[in-house]
Formats: sequence, structure tokens, C-alpha cells
Amino acid sequence: MEIVRVNLASRGYDVQIGSGLMRQLGNFLREACPKAGRTVAVIADSTVADLYGPAALAALQAGGFEARLLVFPAGESNKNLDTYAQLMDQLLAIQPPIDRSTAVVALGGGVTGDLAGFVAATALRGLEWVQCPTTLLADVDASVGGKTAVDHHAGKNLIGAFHQPRGVLIDVDSLKTLPVSQLRNGLAECVKHALIRDRSLMDFIDRNAQAILAADGPTMTTLVARNVAIKAAVVSADEREAGERAHLNFGHTIGHAIESLVGFDSIGHGEAVSLGMVAVCRLAVGRKLLAQNEYETILALLKRIGLPTYQTGLNPDEVWRLMQHDKKALAGRLRMILPHGLGSVGIYSDLSQSEVLPAIAALETNES
Amino acid sequence: MEIVRVNLASRGYDVQIGSGLMRQLGNFLREACPKAGRTVAVIADSTVADLYGPAALAALQAGGFEARLLVFPAGESNKNLDTYAQLMDQLLAIQPPIDRSTAVVALGGGVTGDLAGFVAATALRGLEWVQCPTTLLADVDASVGGKTAVDHHAGKNLIGAFHQPRGVLIDVDSLKTLPVSQLRNGLAECVKHALIRDRSLMDFIDRNAQAILAADGPTMTTLVARNVAIKAAVVSADEREAGERAHLNFGHTIGHAIESLVGFDSIGHGEAVSLGMVAVCRLAVGRKLLAQNEYETILALLKRIGLPTYQTGLNPDEVWRLMQHDKKALAGRLRMILPHGLGSVGIYSDLSQSEVLPAIAALETNES
Repeated sequence: MEIVRVNLASRGYDVQIGSGLMRQLGNFLREACPKAGRTVAVIADSTVADLYGPAALAALQAGGFEARLLVFPAGESNKNLDTYAQLMDQLLAIQPPIDRSTAVVALGGGVTGDLAGFVAATALRGLEWVQCPTTLLADVDASVGGKTAVDHHAGKNLIGAFHQPRGVLIDVDSLKTLPVSQLRNGLAECVKHALIRDRSLMDFIDRNAQAILAADGPTMTTLVARNVAIKAAVVSADEREAGERAHLNFGHTIGHAIESLVGFDSIGHGEAVSLGMVAVCRLAVGRKLLAQNEYETILALLKRIGLPTYQTGLNPDEVWRLMQHDKKALAGRLRMILPHGLGSVGIYSDLSQSEVLPAIAALETNES
Repeated sequence: MEIVRVNLASRGYDVQIGSGLMRQLGNFLREACPKAGRTVAVIADSTVADLYGPAALAALQAGGFEARLLVFPAGESNKNLDTYAQLMDQLLAIQPPIDRSTAVVALGGGVTGDLAGFVAATALRGLEWVQCPTTLLADVDASVGGKTAVDHHAGKNLIGAFHQPRGVLIDVDSLKTLPVSQLRNGLAECVKHALIRDRSLMDFIDRNAQAILAADGPTMTTLVARNVAIKAAVVSADEREAGERAHLNFGHTIGHAIESLVGFDSIGHGEAVSLGMVAVCRLAVGRKLLAQNEYETILALLKRIGLPTYQTGLNPDEVWRLMQHDKKALAGRLRMILPHGLGSVGIYSDLSQSEVLPAIAALETNES
């Protein structure tokens, strides 16, 4: 088992990572939330409720809690105010009624963490909560940062709150049943973390690609722990997103634009981010911030773990247009993150259309 | 004009109180939110939008802002998630789209402050906001504390967040058009503040009762400033409601029970709180915490400003039963606030049914 401490200005919390940890959920919650009362609300989507609901409830009962399972329909499209209101109805219908000592457990992937976290942030003006992520993306991304949200038809994550969990428990055994497409969504973020902060993590992923794709327990424990540590360091330094937390947006401005252009059903989030990273790396080569052989090392790594490095049929003008909607833009200027060699990045606000379009067009031919 | 500083652990803000201040709203917002962008969202109910919407928008435009008015239907029953979602729709439909520099102005009474504050707390994970209360209750109560919320059918204020405003601007001229029943809702809180913290405020209210009931500008400026100062001191000492903030619940446990028993349409909130204060004062007389002549002084003050000191037809057993639903109860024990003489209080968790029932029954006969 590995433990990564997330240090925040207000207070910190532990992320515990290992095989078979779900059985410890009751004890973990007791330590993370010493003031928690008897009732605990476990929020999960319908898929995860079937897979892990019984084990989570049993572990909480073994820890002396009376756990109630609140279920919502699986699917990204349900991350909205309607589902939020339905979960709030379920939570406030619990008898005897919840009070401020009631803790919430978010059991599932990123959608569940975002939704359950927002419920916890706003029920009785804030309940303590613990995250049990069950996907690699949630393990390495959503488990640190305290961002909770629902989507609105005007855009993703437009409604939400910052609400830090009291602890995160990651049972890497849940990754063994994860579809490979979902594993790739998390791997794209792992490569991103390596590129922005830690060259040796690139080597680790490269050496262990087979074990990673097979979701080997000890390998995943190390992989997740190293990634959580990187994200925790970035978030600790910039809890409210004033500065370097923007580094985590590496590859995402172009990635999000590709995602909405190609269609969320036709391309995975991790695949889109992979393409976005390739494009910004090529931009960096053009600015001599990244050497050609470093660029090729990155492409080789992405290919080795099954992430795409090219995409035919993209219209660069359309991608550029969609990039302008990036909500991380400041005062109308696009901010992009470019690599400075391997393992380091910088923030750039001076990229013009004429510089960016060729890097997107090049995605057509990176297959060579 | 009076300025009261609210000091909080995180940061503080100013409450400005005076006649004709609405004209200064643009300048006030600029100073309170120096990073605010051009777009400002003003949230008001349909009644207040008609009365003060044009003046508020004009003042904001004079301050260089482009103000948009978001309106919801007036009425306590609209303080719910549906109205919240509709306001969020309006806010997120603004073109060009809002960003994190967009400020929110809550223009209206307590319902508006709670709703608009919750919208501000959760749009883009938190926008800066400023309150412009237009009722005496909102002036002296909701303007300090940072509590935002909507009601749920399971109970009042069950969904919300702590989100401190960047400043509060109180134009006491708005009190001149306020129905006397609503003035009384605020006056009950003023008497409460006096009883828990400041005996000399009792004398001020007593001496100036006529000017207060006529909403005289200078008198109201002083009254509001003194009350805001008391509430600010209590909240500053206990921002997250761990301890002495419970003093603000003086009279409210019994008051809320009477309110739900008699019916929200049949008794004003201030009237119910007045009866609740009378009952706890009588309890305090029984425990020799309050002298009989002090008790009579309190009753005389309530009568002088038109607040009730008795209510016929109350069933004490029913009131007691409803008191058990108080959400400020801790581990099932009712916590009540009893006066220690005039201007001071203590927290008591040892009041039994047999002690409380006679004090409620006595409300039948306090007319004498």
C-alpha cells in the first residue's frame, strides 16, 4: 500500500492506494472523518452500484456505520442538475434525517466524484466526504483537487464548488475490470503528468507498459501513487487555480476542441488529449523548446500504451474555432502550455492562428 | 452614512448603511470587487425588480458596468432548486458568456440573498457577490454570515453553501415602502440582538420606537448599523457555527415551532420569534436567570414596537413535538438559549418537557 499526502492551505488529507483496500473502507472513513456520525451516504452510478455497492456497504457496516446506497443512472449525460436534485431528494429522505455529522462516500469514476462531491458540498451547507475512485482517470485526476461540478447545456462543469474530500481510498483491483478504452483515458493523464513534471515517470510507463495495460496490482499501485503525488504537488501550490495549476491543462485546449469536433461518442477523452499533447509538442519543436528526438520519444511512448498520435480528417480551422471557447482563456487570450524539454512546461499566451494551424494539420500525418 | 467592518478569518468586508446609497452601487461594487469584469448579474424577485431594478441598473452603468437583470417570481415558496436552476439558466445564457470575473448583485430581501448567494457560490465554482438588502430583516440578519441556501420539501435551507459576499450596501430608504409586517420581522431580530449582547440597544429601540416604525432615515441608519455590528461580532467569533453563533438562535427554536404550527400564512416570522423570546425569557425567570422586572421590561419593549407577547390557542404539546425537529439539535439534544439578565445569554441542553411546557402554556395569558 502507498499513502500520498495532499497538503492544502486549509487542511490536508491522505490518498491510500493498494490492492484489496475496499475492504478497509469502514476503518478508512472512521480515520478520515473522526466526527462522522453513524449514517453514511454512498453515492454510485447504476453500473458501479452493481459491481462494488455490496462490498462497499459491507465494509462500512464492518466499520460500525449504517450505510445507505444512493444510485443514479450511469452515463456522462446524467452529470446535470436534474440528477443532482434527485440525489439530494434521496439524501434528504434518509430516516432518521441526516445531520452535519453525516458523511458522503463517492464510489465510482469521475462523473460520480463530481456529482457526489457537489452533493456533499451543498447538503446542509457542506458535509464531509471521502472518495473511492474506481477508474484510472478518477484515480490520477479527480481524486486530487477538490473540484466538484455538474454540467449545464451551456458547457461542462459550469456549476459546482471547491470542496476537498477528507480522504481518498483507491483500490487498484477495480482497474482489472475496467474497459481498455477507459484505462487509456487515465493513461493519457499519466503521460501528461510525466511530461509536465517528471521525466522518470515517462521511463516507468515505458518499461512497464505491458503490466500497466494488464492492470497488474503492484504496478498500478506505483503508477497511481506517482501520479497522485504529482497532481497533489501542483494543486497544493495553487489551490484556487491562480497560476501553475494551469500546467495540468497541458494538451487539453486542443484535446477538448478535437473531442467536440469529432464527437464525444467517436473519440475517447484520453485519445483526444493524446492528440492535443502531440500537437502542442510539435508547436514546441517549432519554437525550439523541445528537440526533435524528444518529440519522437513522446510519440513512441503514446503508441506503446495504445494512445493515438494522429487523426485523419480533422479540419484545423474548425479545431481553432472551437479552441476559442476554452473556458480557461483569460480576458479573451488563449493560454497554452508548451513543453520545455521532457518533464517541464511553460505557459504561453502568444500563440497565433498561423502558428497553431500547421501543428493541428500535422496530426493528419504523424502516423509515419 | 455608517460603515461596519465584518472581520472573518478568511477575509473581511464592509457593510455600508445610509440613505440614498443605491445611487452609489456602481462605485461600491468597483471597490468591493476590484477584479470584477464588465458584466454584472443583478438577481431580484419580480417585486423588487419593479421597485428598484431600474435604479440599480442605472447606478451600475454609471459605474462602468454592463448590468443584466435576472428576475425570479416573488415569494418564499420559490426559494427552491427549480428557481435556482432557472436563475442558473439565465446567468449562463448571458452573451458574451460570463467568466470568473463576473460579479453577482443580490438585490432584495432574505429569499433573494439566499438564492442569489447560492447561485454566486456555485456558478463556475464561485463568483464574487455583493448584497443589497431591501428589507429590515435582510439588513440586520442575512447581510452578515455568508449563509446561502434554498429550501427542500424536507426542510428549510437544507441545500446551500457558506459564501461570504465581498460587501453589503444597505440603502435604508427602501425601508420606507416596506409593509409594517415585514418591518416587524426585522425588529424581532433587533430585539434579539439587544437581548443577547447589548442592553443599551434595548434602550435605543425603546426611545426611538416611533421613528423606527416610521422608517426615519437617520434612525434606521443607526439601528441597522448597531445590529449589523452585533451580528458581525458574533459571526466573526464563530464563522462555521461551532459555538457562540448558536446565541443567534435565541427565541428561534420555540418560534419556528409556533410558526409551523400556526401556519406561515397566519403568523409573521417576527411575530413567532417574538413569542419564542417571551417563552424562553419566562423559562429564564423560572431558573432565576432573569428577574421578574427584567422580564416585564422585555415584554413592554416588544409591545411598544408592535410585536406580540401572547398567542391564544397554542397547544403546548404540539409546540414541544415540533421543537424536536430543530435542525440545530446536537446528537438528539435540544439546545436552547436563555437570557442571563438583559444583554447576555447562555446555552442550555438540559431543558425537559415538564419545564418547557408551562412556559409555552403561559403564552396564552401574557396579555395581562
